[in-house]
Amino acid sequence: MPTKITRYKNKNPISYSFGMTVTMELLLRKPETVEVVFLSTQIEENESTVKLRDICVKHNIPVEVNEKAFNILSSKGNCFVIGQFHKYETQLTNESHLLFVNPSDSGNMGTIIRTALGFGIKNIAVLKPAVDIYDPKTIRASMGAIFQINIEYFDDIDTYRQRFPDHNLYAFMLDAQTTLDKAEFNNPYTLIFGNEASGLPTEFTDFCETVVIPHSKAIDSLNLSIAVGIALYTHFNPPGESLHLSSAR
Amino acid sequence: MPTKITRYKNKNPISYSFGMTVTMELLLRKPETVEVVFLSTQIEENESTVKLRDICVKHNIPVEVNEKAFNILSSKGNCFVIGQFHKYETQLTNESHLLFVNPSDSGNMGTIIRTALGFGIKNIAVLKPAVDIYDPKTIRASMGAIFQINIEYFDDIDTYRQRFPDHNLYAFMLDAQTTLDKAEFNNPYTLIFGNEASGLPTEFTDFCETVVIPHSKAIDSLNLSIAVGIALYTHFNPPGESLHLSSAR
Repeated sequence: MPTKITRYKNKNPISYSFGMTVTMELLLRKPETVEVVFLSTQIEENESTVKLRDICVKHNIPVEVNEKAFNILSSKGNCFVIGQFHKYETQLTNESHLLFVNPSDSGNMGTIIRTALGFGIKNIAVLKPAVDIYDPKTIRASMGAIFQINIEYFDDIDTYRQRFPDHNLYAFMLDAQTTLDKAEFNNPYTLIFGNEASGLPTEFTDFCETVVIPHSKAIDSLNLSIAVGIALYTHFNPPGESLHLSSAR
Repeated sequence: MPTKITRYKNKNPISYSFGMTVTMELLLRKPETVEVVFLSTQIEENESTVKLRDICVKHNIPVEVNEKAFNILSSKGNCFVIGQFHKYETQLTNESHLLFVNPSDSGNMGTIIRTALGFGIKNIAVLKPAVDIYDPKTIRASMGAIFQINIEYFDDIDTYRQRFPDHNLYAFMLDAQTTLDKAEFNNPYTLIFGNEASGLPTEFTDFCETVVIPHSKAIDSLNLSIAVGIALYTHFNPPGESLHLSSAR
């Protein structure tokens, strides 16, 4: 009997990976969470589908040809694979973090997750209210990087600070002490970014060093994910062996 | 009689700015292109609406309270102002450029336009086939920066090179001679980026210096707009007076 399929909802315990790339990341990083993989009747069998079937057999994950799943779940035409998995919780380690205060854009958050992984940051704290990290839009924009990152929600900044009292806090804001090119981030650090529209509350200056990214007056601010990318790039020290010199896409 | 309203179409000669911020940018930068400004019945009159009406009076632009416009054009609930304008053409100057080969994501392109303006680049070349820069999604993601940038489409790279023979070409790709931190961009320069999924064709190595942005092996590539932001930031020399130290949003 085919699996019953329902549209993604924040309050439901399951979510979805759309497309081959993201679903392969899901299967490789978090196979224990996967409940079923849906294939479209239009999928072409190739090396990727063989590899996908192998992993599913290994982890005892059912693979179901189910066109209905694509009609119900996917708005984009070029998606032929969907993974259905149950949401899981992860805990931040004591390494360096990114922290977002009330982020509201799902796509931005996905791009940020991908960028964080690309620059060696594996822990992201999120202060509520905030986007749902399991929104399929976030998962898709992360290109599956979300399955390699620890993400934890906190009710407020005090709760976060009590959990990580040794982290050095750097807040990105307008009225700042230091420009990014002169900023030093001492380990373990937490880079803190505000909401896309309203930025960070001024009380963060009480307990953070503050940093700005210089740009021309012609714009009010940089896009949040761009700012995160620039901040991480400037402090990225690639370990030789894991360095990947890649084109930008 | 209220203006006849039709959904945005690539082939139509008109497009739309959604929201107060973007519409104000349109009115300030390209008033001569604006045909009508629609206000929602739900808009609250405040300083911004007064300023908007003043500019419209000055340029003889009709302001129309028209709820239908919002039902037909806007999918987001929090939009109370729409500007309708006719598309216009701009020509690149001889200053430095960004060049995109077959970009396919409207939102990414808008973010890139905003970022370019933020780092002092006012010319963007686009090789066809490519996104429609007048897609309201692009305009919205640019936060109105698009109205301050020259953007020109080209059929192929040869046509572009013939127009700008003096530009020094730097292509961002996998198999590159230089990492970004060691790259020098000699004026006037053109930074060249490939399609989000497929990158740049290898023939670009024949006539470009090639540059890579180092990142960890854990991801295949950086998001296109992130890569552009990083590249521009590292070579941004803010003129003192126009420097704006802003929070990231």
